[in-house]
Order: sequence, then C-alpha cells, then structure tokens
Amino acid sequence: MFTYEYLLDFTKSAFMKMGCSSEDSDVIAEVFLAAELRGHASHGMLRLKDYYELWKSGRINVSPAVKVVYESPGTAVVDGDNAVGMVAAKRSMQIAIEKAKAAGTGWVATRNSNHFGIAGYYAMMALKADMIGICLTNANPLVAPTFSISRMMGTNPIAVAIPAKDQPPLVADFATTPIARGKLAVSEKKGERVAFGFVQDKNGQPSDDPSVLKSGGSMLTLGGDRVHGSHKGYCLSALVDIFSAVLSGANFGPFVPPSVAYLPVLERKTGEGTGHFFGAMRIDAFQPADEFLKRMDQWIETFRAAKPAPDQEKVLIPGDPEREAEELIRKNGISLVPAVVKDLEEIAKALEIPFDQD
Amino acid sequence: MFTYEYLLDFTKSAFMKMGCSSEDSDVIAEVFLAAELRGHASHGMLRLKDYYELWKSGRINVSPAVKVVYESPGTAVVDGDNAVGMVAAKRSMQIAIEKAKAAGTGWVATRNSNHFGIAGYYAMMALKADMIGICLTNANPLVAPTFSISRMMGTNPIAVAIPAKDQPPLVADFATTPIARGKLAVSEKKGERVAFGFVQDKNGQPSDDPSVLKSGGSMLTLGGDRVHGSHKGYCLSALVDIFSAVLSGANFGPFVPPSVAYLPVLERKTGEGTGHFFGAMRIDAFQPADEFLKRMDQWIETFRAAKPAPDQEKVLIPGDPEREAEELIRKNGISLVPAVVKDLEEIAKALEIPFDQD
Repeated sequence: MFTYEYLLDFTKSAFMKMGCSSEDSDVIAEVFLAAELRGHASHGMLRLKDYYELWKSGRINVSPAVKVVYESPGTAVVDGDNAVGMVAAKRSMQIAIEKAKAAGTGWVATRNSNHFGIAGYYAMMALKADMIGICLTNANPLVAPTFSISRMMGTNPIAVAIPAKDQPPLVADFATTPIARGKLAVSEKKGERVAFGFVQDKNGQPSDDPSVLKSGGSMLTLGGDRVHGSHKGYCLSALVDIFSAVLSGANFGPFVPPSVAYLPVLERKTGEGTGHFFGAMRIDAFQPADEFLKRMDQWIETFRAAKPAPDQEKVLIPGDPEREAEELIRKNGISLVPAVVKDLEEIAKALEIPFDQD
Repeated sequence: MFTYEYLLDFTKSAFMKMGCSSEDSDVIAEVFLAAELRGHASHGMLRLKDYYELWKSGRINVSPAVKVVYESPGTAVVDGDNAVGMVAAKRSMQIAIEKAKAAGTGWVATRNSNHFGIAGYYAMMALKADMIGICLTNANPLVAPTFSISRMMGTNPIAVAIPAKDQPPLVADFATTPIARGKLAVSEKKGERVAFGFVQDKNGQPSDDPSVLKSGGSMLTLGGDRVHGSHKGYCLSALVDIFSAVLSGANFGPFVPPSVAYLPVLERKTGEGTGHFFGAMRIDAFQPADEFLKRMDQWIETFRAAKPAPDQEKVLIPGDPEREAEELIRKNGISLVPAVVKDLEEIAKALEIPFDQD
C-alpha cells in the first residue's frame, strides 16, 4: 500500500528528472494520481512506464510552449507543442473556462498533444466555477467501424461533469467501446475468455478471445454488433475523433500516433500529434446558477430513488462508483500490482530518485 | 405510393385546419416529410394521428408565442409555449445559429415544447451556414437505468451534423437505446421475438418478448447489459435529459409528458413540457472554414476506404443510409403502410380536407 502523497511526490520527482518544470510536473502527477483515486488504475501509475519510454526515445517535449494559435471570444485552437498530454490538456481546459467566464461558453480544440490520462479530470475542472465541463480525446487506433475489419479509431472517451448543490456532481467518463482496452489486456494475460461483443478477429468474426487483437483483430464499438447498435457507438467514436482532431488540426482516426514507445512512429500524418476537445458552459448563461443546482439535486435524487432490479442493491448516478472508490482509497491507500511496482523501481533507478515500497 | 409534394401539402392542410398558422404548418409539414425522405417512417406520417389526437384533446397550443426567456450573447433559454414541437424546435435552432454568427457558438435550451419529429432535421439546419449543428431531446419515459426496473428516461436521441466540402455532410442521428421504440412495436404486432439486449421484464430479467413493455417491462440503454456497457448508454441518455430539461426548465426523466393522447397527463411536474437542446458551432471560430471542410473530406474518404468485413459490401459514414434512402424515395415516391393510410383518411374526413390515395 502506498499513500496518495507518496506516489504524488514520486511521480512529480520522476517528471522533474525527465526535465519537466516543477509546475508541469505537479500537473502531470496530479492527473496520474486522480486516476488512481477514482479507481481507474488503468490510467494511473500503470502508465508511467509508457510515458518514461516515450521520453527516453525523444518522442515527447518536456519544455513545451503550449499556445493558442487561433481564437474567437468563445473558442480557441491550442497547439500543445508535443507536451506530456496533461500539460497541454490542463492549460486548454483553463482556457475554455476563461473563455466561458467572458463569453458564456468556452470551447477549445487542442492538437499536437499526447496521451493525457483520465478525461474526467479536465471535465471536473469546470465544477468549481459553476460550469458544466466537457472533455473528449482521440487515441490510438484499435477499434473498427461497424461492418469493417480495419482499426480506425481509439477508445475515444467522453467525459461530462455537471455540478449540483447538496448532491455530489454528476460525472460521466466513459470510453465509446463496451470495455476498456486495459481490461482486455488483463484477461489476455490470465488466458481468460471474455464476453462476445468486445472484439472480432481479423476476418470480422465475433470472438471471445482477447488475444485476437495481436493477430489483426479489432475492438468493437459500444453496442457490439449492428443488431445491438454498434453503429451508434461508431457514430459516437467518430464524433469524438472529429471534434478532437479535425477541428484542432491533429491526426485523426488511424493516424493518431502511438502512446507507447514500442510501436513505431507512423509514416503518414494528417495533422499534429493527438487531439483533444474541451468545453466549459456557464450555468448562469442559461438560468440563475442556484436554480439549476437545486434542479440538479432534484434530478439526482429522482434517479437515486429509481427501483433497483431484485438482484441489485441500488441504482447509481454517473460518478458514484468513482467517488466511492476515492473514499476507500483515501482511507486505505493505493494498492499497486507487483508488475507496476517493478516498473516504478526500474524508473526510480534509471532516474536516480528514491522509491521505497512501504 | 405518394409523392413528397402531395403528403407535404396534405400535412400542411391538416395543421392549418387544426388552427396553426400557414407559416407554422409549413415548418411542421417539412419536418414530418423530412422523416419520410430520410427513411425514418417511424417519425413521419405514422405520427400524424398522435399529433391530431393531442390537438383534439386540447393538449397542444396551435397559436403559440415561442419566446426567449433568458439569454447571453451565445446562449438562450426558449419557452415553446406548448407549441407543436417542430415550431418551437425550428425557432430554437434558428436562434442558436444567429447566436453562433455573433458569438462563434450558439446554445439554446428549450422548455415547454412537445414531440418534434427527427432530431437530425434541426442539426442539419446548421450545415448551410458552415456550422456544426447539434440537437438533443428528451422523450417519454420507457427506458430503465442500469441496475433498475423503473422507466426513467426516453429514447433520448443525439443528432450532430458536420459539413464537408465535396463529400456529403456527416450526419449522426441516433437514439441512446440499441433499437427504436417503433421497431419493437412492429415486432410486437407481428408476434415476433426480438434479440436479447433490447428489453427486460418487470423484474429486470432479460427478455426477447417486446410485449413486456405492456406489462411493466422497460427498454434497455445502448450497451444492453452492464457487461456490454449499458452504464455508458445510461450516461448518454442521462446527459441528453439534463441538457434538454434541467438546463431549460422542462420536465425531466420520468416526468416528461406523454406524446400520445391515450396516456393521461402526469400529475407531477418538474418543469414545463418536453425539453430540447440545440447547438451551432461556427467552423471558422476554430480554423478557416475551407481548411476544415477539406479536412472533413479527407476524414470521410479515409473512413470510406476502411476494409469491409468479408460478408459486407462497404463501410458506411454516418448519414449514408439516410441519404441513400432519400435518393430512392425522391425517385420512387413514399410508400405508407395501410394502417397509416387509414389514419390519414380518418383525419382528412374529420378535418374536412381532401385525401386521395395514389
């Protein structure tokens, strides 16, 4: 078990050793640990090695000049200067919030960025300002459109955070695939089969074997197959890609650069780096904020009171599972699997920083 | 077979006889026929009887004063004054487009409205102005959140239209359930079973019998079950409901008023009427429009070139099926099922307007 503070300091030290500024390292470490706190270990310390390897191979810029390259009173395009994704993303969301303060809503499309951790972190930045926050990002191609066997899209997540008054905020943060890539990887390592509807083999045949992803197979979109609405998941994933990359000038679809160093840099580019999209909407651009916040409480209380199925304990509000995870983890500490601990030990050794396992 | 023009004139005449202005009747008829043209008969002439019955029972306002009740330079809340949904919705989207012209993006939340036909119609209004169009609406509760057996949400659709240059625009328009309510109704009438993943019975057990909706069952969200990501479909549907109803002050979730007269008016209200949400985003608030349009062409051409699965002819772009339907229907005419023709005959007789089949 590790404390939040210990891993936060460790992560910050690692990025400072890689050459990031103290301020940028703070941002990066905070987002890494936000993933752990919210129970999304797949986007937490597990990923540190990928970032480290990208840095080691010179594929990431540790002293970026993140800047606005195009703007209007309520919109902007940000160039991330190939920064660690968190640095470009947090600055972009800050700009969206600033724009919203002035213009009612603020919308920022970001190019030339990299993997940025959990999308929910940036959406939630809007909450303190009584705003609705939105964050989208494209990602490495692994997912096939309906009727196709080509890997054209990432797991392209959507995050939306909506403030309430006495109730905790509603935070939706989900990939546009039925299951996360990380969970398939875990099943594959254990040699387990998975449910049908997650992957197809290289011929487009339904499969329950997650290892098909290593032999030309692909992930399916939310819905799974055409009968169950995979074309709707394809629409969602396509929209995330277009907002993140076509509006910003980043690489779209199959051209999104790999977020791991063991995959080669792609030959063809259709833009700069990975793309994100951020939105901030001032509640009081629509109605007095207090009125809205009370109505959101009423919405949440209504949905909490929905009747659970006989075998279920309760009906959840988007964001409940993550908040419950955070309460437990803040109390009990963060548990890392041995393979991740080993990665962190190696990184610590290479960067000459201390790392003590409890 | 009917011609587009004939049914357009008939629909306009019907609404004028109900007391709508000539201008409003034009709008309503155009949206009804847009559904037929795009191959979504479930939202076309089939629905005319529901509108007629609502009018007959005095539940709809044929001479509404649709008005902005709250606004900022880039946002507004519109009160639809209990208008036929199309009238409130088209006006609201026009306001979103006007706001976007001035402010870069425009966002309108509409309350006190009614069923408005196909969401895609309003999203597509933005295309002519080189804008991205967005339209959401809530609807009668039929759908249960994950883990619940209560009907809390409608099929709450999402429509987004994105312009391209030489390629046709990308138009995504889909319910946040795996299947449309109308298709379940057709299977039910035929006494057919449906795929699992669409409905559950009153105890939350998976079912392939669409008639369970008449005995306390409910529709499932996109994803179907928890394993296949139904919680993501629940998030989507919840977000559509909150944007449409909480931001606007309409009834949310289980309190959305019925869009058919044979269901009683609900006792409890949490706002006014049905809610919608509209967005218009000027492309050139992000980059020179021509650059974006060329990049959208490139995106569309890339996805069209994805490899089809061996048993598939081609990979589709969102909006392709509707455009192909429209080409055929413009050429061959609109075919209505006998039950709908019978409805139209009855309405024609009651309203004393001509209706000649063929």
